[in-house]
Amino acid sequence: MAEPIFTPNDTNIWYTEYHTKNSGITFRIKETLYKEKTQFQELMILDTYEYGKVMLLDGLVMLTEKDEFIYHEMITHIPMHTAMRKKILIIGGGDCGTLREISKYEHIDFVKMVEIDGAVVEASKKFFPQLTINLSEKSEIIIGDGIDFVKNTKDIFDLIIIDSTDPFGPAEGLFTDEFYKNCYHILSENGSLVIQAETPYFYPEAVKRIYNRLDNIFERVFPYYAYIPTYPSGMWQFFLCNKNNELNFINTNISEQFAKDLQYFNYDILKSAFAIPNFVKKIYGL
Amino acid sequence: MAEPIFTPNDTNIWYTEYHTKNSGITFRIKETLYKEKTQFQELMILDTYEYGKVMLLDGLVMLTEKDEFIYHEMITHIPMHTAMRKKILIIGGGDCGTLREISKYEHIDFVKMVEIDGAVVEASKKFFPQLTINLSEKSEIIIGDGIDFVKNTKDIFDLIIIDSTDPFGPAEGLFTDEFYKNCYHILSENGSLVIQAETPYFYPEAVKRIYNRLDNIFERVFPYYAYIPTYPSGMWQFFLCNKNNELNFINTNISEQFAKDLQYFNYDILKSAFAIPNFVKKIYGL
Repeated sequence: MAEPIFTPNDTNIWYTEYHTKNSGITFRIKETLYKEKTQFQELMILDTYEYGKVMLLDGLVMLTEKDEFIYHEMITHIPMHTAMRKKILIIGGGDCGTLREISKYEHIDFVKMVEIDGAVVEASKKFFPQLTINLSEKSEIIIGDGIDFVKNTKDIFDLIIIDSTDPFGPAEGLFTDEFYKNCYHILSENGSLVIQAETPYFYPEAVKRIYNRLDNIFERVFPYYAYIPTYPSGMWQFFLCNKNNELNFINTNISEQFAKDLQYFNYDILKSAFAIPNFVKKIYGL
Repeated sequence: MAEPIFTPNDTNIWYTEYHTKNSGITFRIKETLYKEKTQFQELMILDTYEYGKVMLLDGLVMLTEKDEFIYHEMITHIPMHTAMRKKILIIGGGDCGTLREISKYEHIDFVKMVEIDGAVVEASKKFFPQLTINLSEKSEIIIGDGIDFVKNTKDIFDLIIIDSTDPFGPAEGLFTDEFYKNCYHILSENGSLVIQAETPYFYPEAVKRIYNRLDNIFERVFPYYAYIPTYPSGMWQFFLCNKNNELNFINTNISEQFAKDLQYFNYDILKSAFAIPNFVKKIYGL
């Protein structure tokens, strides 16, 4: 096991995030680096012994330096390898990690990111430079309401990534029928929407509700999973929602350097991520 | 999220297991059902709000009612579907969950379980009847030292499952070269050994050490993974160690009822469990 780092400012203060009313994770903090009540939510950045810097929104862990690569690679590279995607929209994703991953694809026409809370982008630039450097020249960061954006945009997208917080608070409107329908209408013929959707282990009712909504609108919804140690249960749910009925895997001819830089994703992971444990199949009626 | 259950004996006492010196999980307990200093370790059984009954050895969560099915199915059904196995040995596994899973196969000749601590078996019979009922008539529970057993047995096995605690305390000897070599010698020609081996996320050095030892002795070691929410990081490492070089998947013609009773394992999971994230490949030099 890792030895603790003792500093002159050593503390024994722990932060606990409750994943349910009766369980949670806990980690030891070095210091609070930043705290701000933004227009939309409470933003906090902690420096921790185990996970490096951690960003929290309304008290919930959004990302940690130690494992952010898993979430950001898996919400991006999975959909980017199921069809050729050139026009990309990210809703949310204020920390810019998803934008960083999309920026690795030279073949894209453009990527737009619409984040409601500019303070998150600013904090990420300051405290998580590894998330905000090397962003594509074809990228555009729009500070605004994703709900309005999808309602009013004239663009058509091959891929929409919903990289939001949980379905309460500022992101509530990103989990509604209306929003999903508006997304559907701005997708190209073989377009897809990807969404992070909690964990079926702790919140079977919540994931089922999201699944059913998406399943009513899209031709086919494919659940997939990634191990994210600092998220509740570690078993994280994504939905790939297709306008067509098929799940195809494509080779995007990513460069050798690109493939080497990936810390989680590879072609075996791509195919295996879609395997669904029986208890989860039961939740979705699959 | 689940509503808490309030009982007349409501408590607000939490148990924290530290996974590293700087992180851990925490859960609220209803009551301590049992505590015993056995000949080998401290055995404790808690009743909890989130996970149901929980068995701890030396303070570490061994199993919970809520997610034990994942560990027990994955340590058993994966190796049972990579070759035809008729003669089975379980080392450890005192809670009997692994034996319960093996008992579902009617085609076996026999299964022997060698557990050093009889108190664990007794406690499991009393507090976790779901683990200890329906054990095969072809099963034999031997209370004794697994290290001595593999050294002295005259039997030959198609599969050895090392279902032990962590590599310190009473199970230390189950992680040595000598023990692995003795296991190798009592395996049939296409025999395999399976071992649970911590998480590469928190303990890269420890899993690497185990991997290298096994890789020196067996023809081929195949890492595989399962989501186990109450184990450190949730990303749990198993090694399938083969006397031959190939990884094959077989259909064991399990009955429809058997397949239906499985809560985690299915044929998609079988194949996908062997996908290795890049950061783990790097640890093993793969």
